[in-house]
Amino acid sequence: MLSTRITEGLGLRYPVFQGGMAWIADGKLAAAVSEAGGLGIISAMAGGDYLRGQIKIARELTDRPIGVNLMLQSPTAEEAAQIIIDEKVEVVTTGAGMPTKFMPAWLEAGVKVIPVVASVAMAVRMEKLGAFAVVAEGQESGGHIGELTTIALVPQVVDAVSIPVIAAGGIADGRGTAASFMLGAEGVQIGTRFLVAEECGVHENYKKMVLDAADTSTVTTGRRFGGNTCRCIKNKFSREFIVKEYAPDATPESVADLGVGALRRAAVEGDTKTGCVLAGQISGMVNRPQPVAEMIEEIMKDTEELLKGATKWIK
Amino acid sequence: MLSTRITEGLGLRYPVFQGGMAWIADGKLAAAVSEAGGLGIISAMAGGDYLRGQIKIARELTDRPIGVNLMLQSPTAEEAAQIIIDEKVEVVTTGAGMPTKFMPAWLEAGVKVIPVVASVAMAVRMEKLGAFAVVAEGQESGGHIGELTTIALVPQVVDAVSIPVIAAGGIADGRGTAASFMLGAEGVQIGTRFLVAEECGVHENYKKMVLDAADTSTVTTGRRFGGNTCRCIKNKFSREFIVKEYAPDATPESVADLGVGALRRAAVEGDTKTGCVLAGQISGMVNRPQPVAEMIEEIMKDTEELLKGATKWIK
Repeated sequence: MLSTRITEGLGLRYPVFQGGMAWIADGKLAAAVSEAGGLGIISAMAGGDYLRGQIKIARELTDRPIGVNLMLQSPTAEEAAQIIIDEKVEVVTTGAGMPTKFMPAWLEAGVKVIPVVASVAMAVRMEKLGAFAVVAEGQESGGHIGELTTIALVPQVVDAVSIPVIAAGGIADGRGTAASFMLGAEGVQIGTRFLVAEECGVHENYKKMVLDAADTSTVTTGRRFGGNTCRCIKNKFSREFIVKEYAPDATPESVADLGVGALRRAAVEGDTKTGCVLAGQISGMVNRPQPVAEMIEEIMKDTEELLKGATKWIK
Repeated sequence: MLSTRITEGLGLRYPVFQGGMAWIADGKLAAAVSEAGGLGIISAMAGGDYLRGQIKIARELTDRPIGVNLMLQSPTAEEAAQIIIDEKVEVVTTGAGMPTKFMPAWLEAGVKVIPVVASVAMAVRMEKLGAFAVVAEGQESGGHIGELTTIALVPQVVDAVSIPVIAAGGIADGRGTAASFMLGAEGVQIGTRFLVAEECGVHENYKKMVLDAADTSTVTTGRRFGGNTCRCIKNKFSREFIVKEYAPDATPESVADLGVGALRRAAVEGDTKTGCVLAGQISGMVNRPQPVAEMIEEIMKDTEELLKGATKWIK
């Protein structure tokens, strides 16, 4: 069993977070991950009523700690921040900004705050604000991403903060997990692999895109004007987005709404042509639907074997 | 001592390649790396006479194996390919294309061919051609890059080929090296850290840019029209390149010559304002000029300690 400040501090069996994927990470998936020993995380993206409902579902399915992922720029962020307190959610992961205004109330309520960061400077600011840990997320991740990659970002963040670091981006198996530990991380966050978990409610067409993807199947949209870069699987949506984004007369405003509704269209309605199929570069390695518990057991077993066998090259 | 198919097959003390950085990786640097137990690699970028001269310099400084890096699109590639045979260079690493036409002669001459690849498909093709190994290089690297990152690319390449894989991109210390081994690599290629080695002849202004860089100091140019993406440290050159590249009337042709001479201007003349300072995302971690041997000993010592201590998290 791997024991780190993440497992000890959060009361987890395994140092594995499930990414709080918008429109996808619901109570059922989160409960399956938490019940299997990791930290299941519900996305707060779909509003207050949805979040309350999904927390309730998760609580019925598991007694273990759960988390909520809050995109700070979301119009319902304020409401979600309070729900997290009211429902005694154990962990909140935040993205897309600084959680400054919510921190005092969360810390007072005993919520562990674990921001997702894409740079050293952001990690340092989060530690000062009282974060319990940070998720250092590389741009190989699916969804909204920064510029740094996991192998470059994680050790630089580890050098800059004293709180634990969770590695994210490009991790789907024991190899990525063991590598993250070598970089100084004390846990990993996995998104793409859980997309194809049996307990994941994302549309079957979406799962099929991930299962069929090769190493080079993803692309980034929203890069031109900065601040909104997303990694997704190449399809009609991404091709048209990129054409419009790089059109001579494109502006930040003309591009701003191109993605609206596109993730929901793919994830919920299963339209993987005109919808946006967010997924990471590691999609090429994700080839098998499995129950969550089987995935996590496999990842942890392989990680332990790699760490135990790490001296095999030393002669 | 780490022993892999790379150290055994190439007769190296350590599984560490020095990146064949154009205009920078000369005979003196390569000899220092080879003499310290790694594989020093001379860039063939500056033409046949230069290459012959640098091989001679390296041979005078070390009896150990050396390598040459050949950009296959270079106008002097043909000449360089023959020099490699004539001078009995032990290893050739190739970039920017398929080395198909040179392979038979190289293999017959006993040259070990180790192409740099950025995708699984390219790795598979290289194995079929008779490559001894591949360098799987992530886009966190400095210089010409692909799309995949190291943590996503390396395990997918390892799964697809039987020949040894050398990880490159974002690796500058024992942590990156140990992580690469966990991903399945049997060696690492390091570029950015060797830029600030005492034996590296790159201009002092260039070294200072790397030493002063933070985690977020690099950017990519040449991305818009594809095929020529380069990672460099942000400066006047990169800002102006990107403005021109994304101008409404930009075309692949208008952009093609923007970088001509820019690397030489920075690396040789020390003009780090209008010159191109190629360097990787790990620049933020590279803060200390050292002799090559000290760097390599430190990296190998830290790698071994991490691998030996890999079970510390297992309770």
